[in-house]
Amino acid sequence: MELFERIAAMRAYLAEARARGERIGFVPTMGFLHKGHLALIRSAREDDEVDRVVVSIFVNPLQFGPREDYRDYPRNLERDKKLCLSGGTDALFVPAVEEMYPEGFATHVEVTGVTDILCGRSRPGHFRGVATVVAKLFNIVQPDSAYFGIKDAQQVVVIRRMVEDLDFPVKIKVHPTVREEDGLAVSSRNIYLSAEERRAATVLYRSLKRAEELVVQGERNGLRLKRFLEDAIGAEPLARLDYAEVVSWPDLKPLNELRPGQVLLAVAAYFGRARLIDNLLVEVKA
Amino acid sequence: MELFERIAAMRAYLAEARARGERIGFVPTMGFLHKGHLALIRSAREDDEVDRVVVSIFVNPLQFGPREDYRDYPRNLERDKKLCLSGGTDALFVPAVEEMYPEGFATHVEVTGVTDILCGRSRPGHFRGVATVVAKLFNIVQPDSAYFGIKDAQQVVVIRRMVEDLDFPVKIKVHPTVREEDGLAVSSRNIYLSAEERRAATVLYRSLKRAEELVVQGERNGLRLKRFLEDAIGAEPLARLDYAEVVSWPDLKPLNELRPGQVLLAVAAYFGRARLIDNLLVEVKA
Repeated sequence: MELFERIAAMRAYLAEARARGERIGFVPTMGFLHKGHLALIRSAREDDEVDRVVVSIFVNPLQFGPREDYRDYPRNLERDKKLCLSGGTDALFVPAVEEMYPEGFATHVEVTGVTDILCGRSRPGHFRGVATVVAKLFNIVQPDSAYFGIKDAQQVVVIRRMVEDLDFPVKIKVHPTVREEDGLAVSSRNIYLSAEERRAATVLYRSLKRAEELVVQGERNGLRLKRFLEDAIGAEPLARLDYAEVVSWPDLKPLNELRPGQVLLAVAAYFGRARLIDNLLVEVKA
Repeated sequence: MELFERIAAMRAYLAEARARGERIGFVPTMGFLHKGHLALIRSAREDDEVDRVVVSIFVNPLQFGPREDYRDYPRNLERDKKLCLSGGTDALFVPAVEEMYPEGFATHVEVTGVTDILCGRSRPGHFRGVATVVAKLFNIVQPDSAYFGIKDAQQVVVIRRMVEDLDFPVKIKVHPTVREEDGLAVSSRNIYLSAEERRAATVLYRSLKRAEELVVQGERNGLRLKRFLEDAIGAEPLARLDYAEVVSWPDLKPLNELRPGQVLLAVAAYFGRARLIDNLLVEVKA
């Protein structure tokens, strides 16, 4: 596995691969890798449409708000390198902040509409930062395929929208959420949790599964489902709810009435200083 | 010369060229081509770094304000085709508006800072539209080199900024302004001018040249130069000044005092309904 810190060196390596006709699979991450990332790397490695697997590790300051955890975001490059290698990574791109955002940087990519709700509403500027860094990484790596986890469901929608709107020649491939045995979605931010908060955090997935069960049993009122999620998470003393929403997929509009097709149940809550998100895509039957 | 109206067809053609190792030169235009465009096409054709020349014609609604001339902007595809062919164009890309901006389009590229002045101030949203469509066209055509005229000096700065910031793998190549015999910069919008306005419009270049002469003679006061340009253009009864500015190059900051290096003298004025721009890059001696 080769490691690159500079854009020019990463490009030179990829130009050689492309000149040999190789197709690039790309997994962008913020590092502190867990089994969710590993699942993305492995699906790139096993993808018939991919010859070479590139992973990036970059904690992107642009997608953090001024009161968020950019400085504290966990980092462990030595461990990440081992995990990348074990997943079959060919090249690891680890640029410094100054390499990605040199002085004078002044360009942003903004996706409107689907960013007005959920994390877009709670974290103003977050998806502008995500879209901007992903546009940069796509232009640097020029992947044929790029891999994202549905755990960040709104991020998937934003990136698909950007790719379609700006005509990036990249296939976006989405992987299911990877969970711990008790259902907690794996996340780099789970490291922030105390033992008590860790137990409490299972309320997110449990509430989503119970809401899904209500849908299966025939519930079609979006507002009642939203209230149910709010109450279920609110009943956990260690949880501080950010949002619970029932929205259409993939345009993320709040739903008063569930119609046949897919709907997204999405929640976010704080457990101590950890802000965790989770979601379920639920099939509504006719 | 081949003509493409669909993104997918344009891409398929270019994928084949690239697979043969050919390098793409790209001239994006809004059509109604004149000898300025032709100079760009010819410099692509003669470029040692280019094997295949692609020209796009697309009157981009996103870069026109609500009270601007999008609907009236001159169009003549049959004439444009002949000019493209005569310049050595291999492929002409002429997408419809619905092909570029299908329903649900929601992504924009914004360059801040260098867009706060000159045409960016007079035409809010204009450069957001320019950056967005150029990002799209770059992703569709994936050129090795792209050609722009310095007549749109601020556009050159915005696009270079975007290319650098978002890491587009494209070389931006800039061509001098092409002028009529009497100095008027060629522009598709010159067609709007009456015979009287056409004569009056020469005031732009004459004023710029006289201001340049003042700099050569030792004038170093930016405000005095700006006033000189305002007065010179204001003295033409058929001209309605939009702006006259003396700014640093390439960061486009208003200059009180000219320092050694390049400065940009930039003007915009209405002649009837035609809004014309012109500029000179002037070398300031130590």
